Amino acid sequence: MSELQERAAELDAADPLAGKRDAFVLDDTVYLDGNSLGALPRSVPGRVADVIAREWGELRIRSWTESGWWTAPERIGDRAAPLIGAAPGQVVVGDSTSVNVLKAVVGAIRLAGEGRDELLVDESTFPTDGYIATSAARLTGCTLRPLAPADIPAAAGPRTAAALVNHVDYRSGRLHDLPGITAALHAAGALAVWDLCHSAGALPVGLDEHGVDLAVGCTYKFLNGGPGSPAYLYVRRDHQPRFDSPLPGWNSHQDPFGMRPDYEPADGAVRGRVGTPDILSMLALEAALEVWDGVDITTVRAKSLALTDLFLEATAGLGLEPLTPSAHAERGSQVALRCPDAGKVMGELISRGVVGDFREPDVLRFGFTPLYTSFTDVCRAARVLGEVLNDRS
Amino acid sequence: MSELQERAAELDAADPLAGKRDAFVLDDTVYLDGNSLGALPRSVPGRVADVIAREWGELRIRSWTESGWWTAPERIGDRAAPLIGAAPGQVVVGDSTSVNVLKAVVGAIRLAGEGRDELLVDESTFPTDGYIATSAARLTGCTLRPLAPADIPAAAGPRTAAALVNHVDYRSGRLHDLPGITAALHAAGALAVWDLCHSAGALPVGLDEHGVDLAVGCTYKFLNGGPGSPAYLYVRRDHQPRFDSPLPGWNSHQDPFGMRPDYEPADGAVRGRVGTPDILSMLALEAALEVWDGVDITTVRAKSLALTDLFLEATAGLGLEPLTPSAHAERGSQVALRCPDAGKVMGELISRGVVGDFREPDVLRFGFTPLYTSFTDVCRAARVLGEVLNDRS
Repeated sequence: MSELQERAAELDAADPLAGKRDAFVLDDTVYLDGNSLGALPRSVPGRVADVIAREWGELRIRSWTESGWWTAPERIGDRAAPLIGAAPGQVVVGDSTSVNVLKAVVGAIRLAGEGRDELLVDESTFPTDGYIATSAARLTGCTLRPLAPADIPAAAGPRTAAALVNHVDYRSGRLHDLPGITAALHAAGALAVWDLCHSAGALPVGLDEHGVDLAVGCTYKFLNGGPGSPAYLYVRRDHQPRFDSPLPGWNSHQDPFGMRPDYEPADGAVRGRVGTPDILSMLALEAALEVWDGVDITTVRAKSLALTDLFLEATAGLGLEPLTPSAHAERGSQVALRCPDAGKVMGELISRGVVGDFREPDVLRFGFTPLYTSFTDVCRAARVLGEVLNDRS
Repeated sequence: MSELQERAAELDAADPLAGKRDAFVLDDTVYLDGNSLGALPRSVPGRVADVIAREWGELRIRSWTESGWWTAPERIGDRAAPLIGAAPGQVVVGDSTSVNVLKAVVGAIRLAGEGRDELLVDESTFPTDGYIATSAARLTGCTLRPLAPADIPAAAGPRTAAALVNHVDYRSGRLHDLPGITAALHAAGALAVWDLCHSAGALPVGLDEHGVDLAVGCTYKFLNGGPGSPAYLYVRRDHQPRFDSPLPGWNSHQDPFGMRPDYEPADGAVRGRVGTPDILSMLALEAALEVWDGVDITTVRAKSLALTDLFLEATAGLGLEPLTPSAHAERGSQVALRCPDAGKVMGELISRGVVGDFREPDVLRFGFTPLYTSFTDVCRAARVLGEVLNDRS
């Protein structure tokens, strides 16, 4: 056993989250793609089977009230809220991340008020945020200005309505300075909208603590909600009374079953709802969130950093340039390595039981989910990567 | 056995769709709420269990390609397309009806071009369409004009960009004149956007035949896709190259995994996609659509009219005013009856095994799903309604 393997075994033995691995369906694969699609929690299949057979099959329409379907978006929002540092009543689950970006950005521009007609956007953003921000700017008559997140504080000014920033960069794994950028935007009188897709469930976000205005995120990465599980929208409590959604669907009406011709928005997080929620996907997510019972996100963060530290150390001699910052304060829960022929290398890795993903043009991306990734997994992944590179040279 | 019961038994014996009932999970309840939430098709539970256990649990991220998850929205769109009279390549499944209304209405306004700044909307519409149309008008600088559908042909003029109309009124069950209204809008140079929520799966829609421009609809009513199953968007083939969505998410990009900063829309129906599709709900829908194999929608329509004819006849002596038109050409697949104390009457009906629903302020609404509702069910529902009214008087 190498020194690294010994150390990994010791770290696994001391890991307070080690027991959580049994809450997931896993096999011999080293699955380092939980930042793209989280593994299946064991709590999900039985719950969904019951939703289908009993709640839909037997109770049918009665389940909208009797099985709690109607209130699922806000109930599950409250369940996810502690993971992103939000007090209850501010998060609602539903729709895709892209749709929530439109709600959040148009909502932020309207909250910023007259005279602010500039929207800043993270220039390295996951593309959909940029596309939707462009649409939001066009629909509201704003100018879009792409910037590196680090340049946002200096750029925000009296015309800035809001900035849309990714908390963790999907490609490099860089963690952006949420507290600092948010504070700088506020100092300029602008709003901060954060995309938490690559941070929620992997590290503390602290939305309330840092006064974030609006936020969105998906639930199928570190939150393990399943393929395309619904995303969420956070609207800070004091903004809710003036939150003015571009998607004022009937589910966000004060009296949805009154079927009134005029729209009167509900109070609270419910105002972020739109149409009928996709109950199967949503209740699968609710079951998936059970794995977080008793988990402290600071413990998750500590393990995440230890995992990525170990992987960076174990791959340091392979001649691949890390895109992921070495400083803890700038690192999410993934490691991205530049690699010639990265697409083929990742294909070979997957065939040898180590699953990460490839991002154009030359990036190997490895995600580390602290709830089920072990330090031994990390060692094995690094070893197999070394073997693949060696076999190719 | 009464004369009506005898006739119902004869109609059931001669019903070409009678065998389809076994494709659903049903019990002793007379379920006349399939226009709100369709019953569970037997094809669904096993399929979803496999999607969860094998496709998500074992294959995980590989299922996006290997299990056909990525192409599900357009594949399932093509599967639903014949039911609404659309040739392949024009329908995409995903998001809620409300979200699709925004895409369709903003898309229609943009297709109509400069100088057309008036949006007409069905004044008796299901509320969410009206709320979202109001938002679409506001975001595009249009004026919204609510009108009775019958008044739309005369009202459409040189400033009209589009009209959004419900094919079947959710409350009264009235079927609006899709061919006539569409033709009148076209004569005025405007576009027709139809909401098919209460018609798809119950009667022929003929989108291509009648030259409809855009359409949306849900899949959880007569299409039995399950609670909150994804809705669909139809964009007529010749409009697709200029279709300009207000929700240009990454799933509608020409090269979604190229992760390019600039948005270049895909060709075809895919252009209507937005974010990551909710796979569990979507593949449940795909399984649910299997019940339509070998079913001709004209047979469905004939049975639907026979069912509602029988129910109107059987309830004619109860002193309740039908809101649903008696003319076949004006009737969807439901019967709405005005009834004092309708909420309490429906509660009592449900407790006696006949499930319809109540709509404010005084409407009993009964939906008839030709694939699983029998003529004997109709007789029993009418008899129990008579008993409930009698017991209250």
